[in-house]
Amino acid sequence: MLSFAEAIHDGFGQSFRVDRLVHYEKTDLQELVVFDNASFGRVLALDGVIQLTERDHHVYHEMIAHVPVLAHGAVRDALVIGGGDGGALRELLWHAGVRVTLVEIDPRVIETARAHLPFVCGDAFDHARAEIVVGDGLAFVRDTDRRFDVIVVDSTDPVGPAAALFGEGFYRDCARRLAPGGVLVTQAGVPFFQGAQVAAAHRVRSRLFAHATVYLAAVPTYTGGPMALGFASDADLAPGDAAVLRERYVAAGLATRYYAPDVHVGAFALPPEVRALLRDA
Amino acid sequence: MLSFAEAIHDGFGQSFRVDRLVHYEKTDLQELVVFDNASFGRVLALDGVIQLTERDHHVYHEMIAHVPVLAHGAVRDALVIGGGDGGALRELLWHAGVRVTLVEIDPRVIETARAHLPFVCGDAFDHARAEIVVGDGLAFVRDTDRRFDVIVVDSTDPVGPAAALFGEGFYRDCARRLAPGGVLVTQAGVPFFQGAQVAAAHRVRSRLFAHATVYLAAVPTYTGGPMALGFASDADLAPGDAAVLRERYVAAGLATRYYAPDVHVGAFALPPEVRALLRDA
Repeated sequence: MLSFAEAIHDGFGQSFRVDRLVHYEKTDLQELVVFDNASFGRVLALDGVIQLTERDHHVYHEMIAHVPVLAHGAVRDALVIGGGDGGALRELLWHAGVRVTLVEIDPRVIETARAHLPFVCGDAFDHARAEIVVGDGLAFVRDTDRRFDVIVVDSTDPVGPAAALFGEGFYRDCARRLAPGGVLVTQAGVPFFQGAQVAAAHRVRSRLFAHATVYLAAVPTYTGGPMALGFASDADLAPGDAAVLRERYVAAGLATRYYAPDVHVGAFALPPEVRALLRDA
Repeated sequence: MLSFAEAIHDGFGQSFRVDRLVHYEKTDLQELVVFDNASFGRVLALDGVIQLTERDHHVYHEMIAHVPVLAHGAVRDALVIGGGDGGALRELLWHAGVRVTLVEIDPRVIETARAHLPFVCGDAFDHARAEIVVGDGLAFVRDTDRRFDVIVVDSTDPVGPAAALFGEGFYRDCARRLAPGGVLVTQAGVPFFQGAQVAAAHRVRSRLFAHATVYLAAVPTYTGGPMALGFASDADLAPGDAAVLRERYVAAGLATRYYAPDVHVGAFALPPEVRALLRDA
């Protein structure tokens, strides 16, 4: 019987029975596996790490997309770095009038999402307000002269090539590409297991932005308690006012399963041990 | 190499390397294992299910103890059903003047905690304000004529004998043993994996109390995203006011790692999918 064993922490792992192997491929950049599992539905893994599952991806995608857009309140242009599964893209596109540029380095992730993960991407890649760029996000933010109201860094963990997406040069370029009052949001890791990584990247963002913090979302397959999402802006937008967020949420006509305005505010209520991590950073 | 495989969900499990087996025993009631693991420190498992670990038990114990006590604001007498590891007991005892009665059915859990889990129980079992009863919690709440301001049901999942601790008869007895304005808090399960169980027990509590809800805490080893804790009272205490909670928190002189007044309020901000679970219950 085939099983998928995720072993990224010392002496601890998760294992998933592979009820059906849907796709297996070594792309030019990484190992890409799609399989079906009784508890999680369809699962996408890259280089041995679970990226998303059918049953819980909405937690991550709703929280990485709607928090910055509703915190900002008047987003017109958004940029997604990574996110080749299309999930963040699709959530951003629910906001009428928001144009989204997505820069994904591995075209095989996009093609695999189109073929096997329709529950994540829907028709988002073909949306009139979506622009898809296959290329290096690092180079894109360095070289573009465009400005964005929201930049979402939907990357893998800082291992291998993705490490640069947690570094000062990249964050500095992001800061320069944000329009006034713009927001940078990043996949920051799980504080319980990756405290040093969460702290190090926060320290860099704190130097570059007037306001920097993280917010939390508990994604079942990202084991280790809540994951942190980096939140940085020159505007003071966190945690936000629940009543204002609710107005914007209702106006946007969103139908969400995890995100709600009070969940948004609550996500910025950090346990003392997470606050200490950021303070000591 | 010894490893501990927790397999309570269909096609999904967690596995822990046993770096040192500290204790193994079949008690009269259950299999009890204590081992050391690189990522989690010392671990306690009962009947194949992780109960607590050195590195994350504080999330659970702080949230199951301080939320009801600070929500209530004037607790004198608390009752813990289960909780033989002593963790909830110890957190409750941090509140000066609170007397705690603990009713644990398996004396070997208490003895094992004393011997091998001092980081959980400290000296709580010997505290002047603690009363330890070895016996059946179900019978205790049925037969006692005492009244409590807080009842904490710190049980295992509703499998085997613990199932009765999620049933109507028990909750009805708890309701009768609460002083006016008292609060019942229960280990309710992980909504992602145990939605039907969370809903069923909530439905019962809703019939018996004027106010019933759940609140959430993300405990790393309780896999599946946040776990739910049942919260029921004839008083309207949830989510509470952060400023009032902060006053009480400061007055209590607590030093917590996960609990904070804003985390307390945020824990009652339920994702729409959890609210739907309770509404449809």
